[in-house]
Amino acid sequence: MANETVVSVMGNLTGDPELRYTSAGVAMCRFTVASTPRVFDQKQNTWRDGDPLFMPCTAWRDLAEHVAESLTKGARVVVVGRLRLSRWEDDKGEKRSMMQLDADEVGPSLRFATAKVTKLSRSRADGFTPDVVPDDPWASASTERPASLPQAA
Amino acid sequence: MANETVVSVMGNLTGDPELRYTSAGVAMCRFTVASTPRVFDQKQNTWRDGDPLFMPCTAWRDLAEHVAESLTKGARVVVVGRLRLSRWEDDKGEKRSMMQLDADEVGPSLRFATAKVTKLSRSRADGFTPDVVPDDPWASASTERPASLPQAA
Amino acid sequence: MANETVVSVMGNLTGDPELRYTSAGVAMCRFTVASTPRVFDQKQNTWRDGDPLFMPCTAWRDLAEHVAESLTKGARVVVVGRLRLSRWEDDKGEKRSMMQLDADEVGPSLRFATAKVTKLSRSRADGFTPDVVPDDPWASASTERPASLPQAA
Amino acid sequence: MANETVVSVMGNLTGDPELRYTSAGVAMCRFTVASTPRVFDQKQNTWRDGDPLFMPCTAWRDLAEHVAESLTKGARVVVVGRLRLSRWEDDKGEKRSMMQLDADEVGPSLRFATAKVTKLSRSRADGFTPDVVPDDPWASASTERPASLPQAA
Repeated sequence: MANETVVSVMGNLTGDPELRYTSAGVAMCRFTVASTPRVFDQKQNTWRDGDPLFMPCTAWRDLAEHVAESLTKGARVVVVGRLRLSRWEDDKGEKRSMMQLDADEVGPSLRFATAKVTKLSRSRADGFTPDVVPDDPWASASTERPASLPQAA
Repeated sequence: MANETVVSVMGNLTGDPELRYTSAGVAMCRFTVASTPRVFDQKQNTWRDGDPLFMPCTAWRDLAEHVAESLTKGARVVVVGRLRLSRWEDDKGEKRSMMQLDADEVGPSLRFATAKVTKLSRSRADGFTPDVVPDDPWASASTERPASLPQAA
Repeated sequence: MANETVVSVMGNLTGDPELRYTSAGVAMCRFTVASTPRVFDQKQNTWRDGDPLFMPCTAWRDLAEHVAESLTKGARVVVVGRLRLSRWEDDKGEKRSMMQLDADEVGPSLRFATAKVTKLSRSRADGFTPDVVPDDPWASASTERPASLPQAA
Repeated sequence: MANETVVSVMGNLTGDPELRYTSAGVAMCRFTVASTPRVFDQKQNTWRDGDPLFMPCTAWRDLAEHVAESLTKGARVVVVGRLRLSRWEDDKGEKRSMMQLDADEVGPSLRFATAKVTKLSRSRADGFTPDVVPDDPWASASTERPASLPQAA
């Protein structure tokens, strides 16, 4: 695909992920992420919560099953995916539409949590080799980099 | 901050994360993510690996410690952060520079793995309330959405 | 602001931008971008158009006026902004919501067009200095980079 | 392509774009964008400039020619592209690397400027139809959305 609208959303699950299977047996998992921006209030000289963004997300196949196995309501997650617009007419004939995210990657955020990861080696049809990390002959060069000083986030 | 260059990187750790502490006692953790694009070869009518991007990342404070506790070499991760340019002169007086990512969020990818998450409730100075998920009075409306059909990723 | 959902959308304006002023005299400009992904059809071995994403966008202040002066229906644009969720009850008391983009930057795409740019130096309250390009003492180093070979987009 | 590292950069050109042609006659254009983040200084209760990010960018084909025709040093631009890592050994045999952006879209920013756009209809080999804006039968629905109130950027 090209020219897609790629989006990263960080926030908390508003409920447990819902796993279903299509009639063709394809796993799909739905969940909603509440992403709350932090706004700086210059008058009060302090940060406060802004209006949350509720992003409906859908994961497919292995990712769908892994999300359902690993995450529960309230979990903070990072989701990267592609925005998609669903459009339909409701039962009164009115045009409705909704944006949602087709998730390519979902991970529990390590910002306020730790995680114990279990790698799975299910057979894969598309030839993708998730366990092979490319070797980096330039790696030693990167250790030259000078110490960085911490900065306010 | 505003007008920062926000980047999401998905890939595998090229080594174990390295945890250190600054002289002021601030935790920092360095790791490199190898992100390999998938290129479609129209002549062969198949996907193949493109050139990997090696992205040096730095996490700070709690996130740094959680990354070091949770992830090891080869783990597939999602990282969202801000690009930063380090510039220095090497010992021969030559100008060097390197781009890296100041990580805001790091999560183990659930694409080829499951994870058991442990939420931590360390005291926080900045008033951020990670455990509060905003209530969504619109939630019932979103269940109206029609069933989506699976699509090729 | 922090933890906002930053999005870049590329596509064509579905109509002329609509410029209005709030009761406080603040300029706002609304427009919708139709972003059409290109999907590779492996069976046909060719690219085809996917379902378009229609993204409602709002620009504010100077940017709003510049968009209204510069762009018309059909123009291809690049928009970078922050996703925002509007929620309201319609006249039948039903809960409605809509995602839209608060635009931080809008530019006419140079992919299929050229542009003659006129820089404006209106007075600015926030101290932002748009005309000052930081000097780059490292610039000569970057000319060392080897010739790159063209790649398929 | 899939799993690429897509990046949007907003900033000013540090010099005039440099247009060249490969031996195969393919146009390529190089330019560097200086992107300066705005940092909020809580002690001074004011915004100030952070360290600039200098991003080397390359555009290809029509886009390359349009950039060279339309933009000059200092112009504020929006660039969306894919991060790529160039790696080589310099004449002393040392390993060097540099990140740069393969630009997919470049547009002059309308934040501090207006632009007069000229659409071009060059013949295209890939069947992409830039002038066709998809019709939006849902458009009338979106006019229902309530008036938005201006917010600080």
